[in-house]
Amino acid sequence: MAGKPVIHLAQFLTHSPSYHSLGMWRHPKTDYQSTPWNRPQLYEHIARTCERGLFDMIFFADLNYIADTYTGSLDPALRYATQAPEHDPIPLVSWLGAVTERIGIAATFSTSNQHPFFAARLWATLDHMTNGRAGWNVVTSINRNQQANYGVDRAPTDQRYDQAHEFMEVCRKLWESWDEDAIVMDKANAIFANPSKVHRIEHEGRFFKSRGPLNVVRSPQNGPAILQAGTSPKGQDFAAKYADAIFAIQPRRENAKEYRDAIRSRSETFLRNPNHCAVLFGAQPIIGQSRAHAEELQEQHNELVPLEAGLTILSAHLDFDLSGIPLEAKMAEREEPELHRMRTRFLNPDGSSMTLAEVAARHGQSVGLPQFVGTAESVAEQMIDFFDYVGGDGFMLTAIHTPGAIEQFVDEVVPIFQRAGRFRKSYEGKTQRDLLRQTI
Amino acid sequence: MAGKPVIHLAQFLTHSPSYHSLGMWRHPKTDYQSTPWNRPQLYEHIARTCERGLFDMIFFADLNYIADTYTGSLDPALRYATQAPEHDPIPLVSWLGAVTERIGIAATFSTSNQHPFFAARLWATLDHMTNGRAGWNVVTSINRNQQANYGVDRAPTDQRYDQAHEFMEVCRKLWESWDEDAIVMDKANAIFANPSKVHRIEHEGRFFKSRGPLNVVRSPQNGPAILQAGTSPKGQDFAAKYADAIFAIQPRRENAKEYRDAIRSRSETFLRNPNHCAVLFGAQPIIGQSRAHAEELQEQHNELVPLEAGLTILSAHLDFDLSGIPLEAKMAEREEPELHRMRTRFLNPDGSSMTLAEVAARHGQSVGLPQFVGTAESVAEQMIDFFDYVGGDGFMLTAIHTPGAIEQFVDEVVPIFQRAGRFRKSYEGKTQRDLLRQTI
Repeated sequence: MAGKPVIHLAQFLTHSPSYHSLGMWRHPKTDYQSTPWNRPQLYEHIARTCERGLFDMIFFADLNYIADTYTGSLDPALRYATQAPEHDPIPLVSWLGAVTERIGIAATFSTSNQHPFFAARLWATLDHMTNGRAGWNVVTSINRNQQANYGVDRAPTDQRYDQAHEFMEVCRKLWESWDEDAIVMDKANAIFANPSKVHRIEHEGRFFKSRGPLNVVRSPQNGPAILQAGTSPKGQDFAAKYADAIFAIQPRRENAKEYRDAIRSRSETFLRNPNHCAVLFGAQPIIGQSRAHAEELQEQHNELVPLEAGLTILSAHLDFDLSGIPLEAKMAEREEPELHRMRTRFLNPDGSSMTLAEVAARHGQSVGLPQFVGTAESVAEQMIDFFDYVGGDGFMLTAIHTPGAIEQFVDEVVPIFQRAGRFRKSYEGKTQRDLLRQTI
Repeated sequence: MAGKPVIHLAQFLTHSPSYHSLGMWRHPKTDYQSTPWNRPQLYEHIARTCERGLFDMIFFADLNYIADTYTGSLDPALRYATQAPEHDPIPLVSWLGAVTERIGIAATFSTSNQHPFFAARLWATLDHMTNGRAGWNVVTSINRNQQANYGVDRAPTDQRYDQAHEFMEVCRKLWESWDEDAIVMDKANAIFANPSKVHRIEHEGRFFKSRGPLNVVRSPQNGPAILQAGTSPKGQDFAAKYADAIFAIQPRRENAKEYRDAIRSRSETFLRNPNHCAVLFGAQPIIGQSRAHAEELQEQHNELVPLEAGLTILSAHLDFDLSGIPLEAKMAEREEPELHRMRTRFLNPDGSSMTLAEVAARHGQSVGLPQFVGTAESVAEQMIDFFDYVGGDGFMLTAIHTPGAIEQFVDEVVPIFQRAGRFRKSYEGKTQRDLLRQTI
């Protein structure tokens, strides 16, 4: 299979007890008594494991609230640990930078409720500290619970993206406010920096003002690598314009191909090389000694997710209380506009609609990511098939228990990818962006 | 000397080429080519050195701007590296947490241009990650350059402190929004947290609104240790009410004693134990093989600071352009209200006023911190004398070159303090707050 494109791999994580699977914290192989979810040692181990597996990056999602969307109460989110608690992942970026050498380290940081000067400075610093391995997942916040924590009203989606565009433009100007050769360090003549190579930005826009310059010198990647997860047309534009990599959830490979093609074509309209915007599809591997064993493990895991937990997380992600919809309702046929954004996740492989109960169960198990179930050989084959149908660029993996499921993938599936000539055998290049563009 | 109070030690740092000394980057013993100021390895080495020396903490100052106060141009700040560039220190807190075990790690984070939900979440997370070793130096921003970077107008001082008080109150409410026993992790019954032990805060104040709860569980110190550096009456009130430790610059021991006594008495009016609010005085040790050698080293260092560099940093700290004041003007006699805040730093040991040239030179050398000059024995003795005159609680040390001057203090002065029974011989307790309260 030499000559075929290589697969890029990212590990999805959060600084919390449950990632995409609400069964993970209950799983018999997850032991938070001995490796607590709120101590960095667990993430150190995972980061080193993924670096051993030559992953492009580890990636931390984030949010700034506990959702009361389902039934209007916090109780189900707290009871089922549906993204609650969730600690700030940004301090993990530098902690893990201290204990790894080559792997990219990415985290989510919302542009809502922040000023671009703060974000530009933080991420330029992280890029320096990790020597160019930092990745910023740029999000705008859509949940009213976050806005209540920050005491502001929620902006409409279109305005949020206009604001996010301006936010990024201000960050870029600030990252470029120091020329590459601005630092002189001439001890004899007492000249540290050449003032003519550091520039005001004097930005005055619709949403933001900033005078600059940044007080951080130009970083290895000139700001971090940019990650995104846009789904709306405005969101896809934002992703296609700025992102080095995109995280996408598409359970069916037909939708995945359509999504990736759309991103690549949008990327070209922004005069970008579409190969510089990798699309990583969410995938939840479940690996057993045999097909039957893997299916047992799948069933064991999926049964750990109470239906109410699924309804809670799905309501939160839709920012819409599902407690008024019957469990047997066909979700792809509903007319509530809040439900349209996730419509592709409501479809069975044959294109028919799932019921609310089915969608909620799936959402609690994997947030709608496809589960790849089988022996290591079979999982590798299914993933390569998916990848080849779509045309690229790789996967964002999510675990059913931690850290064992991550170790298992690195130890059992990565070598199969490598033998097939579909995955790197060593890191080439230095930065997160280099790794995402590495073709062999 | 058994029975006398022990000295607490903090190491002052910034994520930048120059700390308090604008001569540091030019010093022949500072080699940023081999240990760059913008790479974490330098700070790793310093943190491990200070931990070997059993310091209470390493402390990072910070600011969000490059000052154009002197002459209205950025040029002198860039040329002389007067707090420019200065990278974000917050990511260093967790990086250094990964490579140390016991020492406290503190950094400055401004309440201006931020919402308390963000700060409360960040600092609770850092406190978890460091297992209770995190310290937050709470500042409000007084420089118009920062406000220009954030595109807002500067609030008057009194309002800034009212806002800072409310900011801290919101943070405290958020830190307390999870009861200590809220986490259940009952796998069998699918109960992660007990919802009745997690609380909305529903804060609606003059400056901030926040609904809560925080999405971070209660941290080891219930939020970080709080540091402060208040000088105005409002600032002293803030410090006395909230701070676990205060950083103060007082070149003369008479002023130092007066300041500490005032803080302790204010602290009592807030019904706090004054021993729970340690005052650490800035000190710049210069250690030689003999008195004459140390004085040579002092002269060598002080001459590395151009007068214009001193005028630049002093103007920035006063937020007042000094280019219109004659160099021979007696600074303690000036009537400009902007100059009154630092009046105690304008006095010679005999109480007479320094000229602008003298103040600027001193400010560029040490930001006005007293230099303790002599052999290691003599420096230890001078510091103990200062400490005993004042009555407590310790020092915030600043270096004339890096990392050598820090190593020298740890290797040569700390053992003298220990032999005199005036410094801990091992860490007792677990948290930053424990260390600040350790009495032997």
